[in-house]
Amino acid sequence: MRAEYINPFILGITTTFETMVDCPLTRGVPRLRGGDEVLHDVSGVIGMSGQAVGTVVLSLSTSVALKAASTMLMQEMTEINADVIDAVGELTNMVAGSAKSKLEELQLSISLPTVITGEGHVVRFPSDVTPICIPFQSQWGPVKLEVCLAPVAVAVPV
Amino acid sequence: MRAEYINPFILGITTTFETMVDCPLTRGVPRLRGGDEVLHDVSGVIGMSGQAVGTVVLSLSTSVALKAASTMLMQEMTEINADVIDAVGELTNMVAGSAKSKLEELQLSISLPTVITGEGHVVRFPSDVTPICIPFQSQWGPVKLEVCLAPVAVAVPV
Repeated sequence: MRAEYINPFILGITTTFETMVDCPLTRGVPRLRGGDEVLHDVSGVIGMSGQAVGTVVLSLSTSVALKAASTMLMQEMTEINADVIDAVGELTNMVAGSAKSKLEELQLSISLPTVITGEGHVVRFPSDVTPICIPFQSQWGPVKLEVCLAPVAVAVPV
Repeated sequence: MRAEYINPFILGITTTFETMVDCPLTRGVPRLRGGDEVLHDVSGVIGMSGQAVGTVVLSLSTSVALKAASTMLMQEMTEINADVIDAVGELTNMVAGSAKSKLEELQLSISLPTVITGEGHVVRFPSDVTPICIPFQSQWGPVKLEVCLAPVAVAVPV
């Protein structure tokens, strides 16, 4: 993944968390993601396609998911229910949407978010791409962003 | 989800399994998907966007994933490793690609597949969409296809 593609996603997640849920994030060190890396408890996944194809994974600990959803919905959420899932999907959508607007040259469009739950779940990428993993800390707990974006090879007419 | 969008995916999965891994599928009854539906052990997820946005989830039991990967790779696979993950991602890609070619009017493009592992994982969709779940049986075990595809609302210029 090209380095200049990473910053729009970092900016996207920090801006989204600050403006949507009033939760500043402290960034850790971005690294290449290992194959079997276990995510936090609740992960939003959204696909992107256009002049590049990719996936964004926004993974939250249960406490971050509940606090973020409570702030967005203005009522205290105590369990991972459909409202919390929707909130996590919406945050994932905003992170991808924010990055998309800063990567205009790739003409990205964004798919529908899905949200993965289940203890110890792993989201694996194809082995020929190199996703970047960026850990963040927040007042509510850890957040992880995984991004993979690969330019589309020019199709050869058959 | 509109009924005419479902058949291209059913045709996509049955054709893909027959031609790629020589494994005919027997279709069960399509139904609206419940929120907490647990998937099989290995699930490929791919996003679609264009005149509609959506997600395809291809969920396989471990035995189906191993047998399908063994056939594609022409060597016996005995554990869920990176090669098996790639094979499941590729099958998911083919199912979405086959459906895409039959839904030309939606001008869909397809994102990068990811593959989810972890016992008891659940892939949840936004609550305002109605994914369809289609169960299949094969000689190797159960297969489940979940599809959600919603036309994009016409954007109002700001």
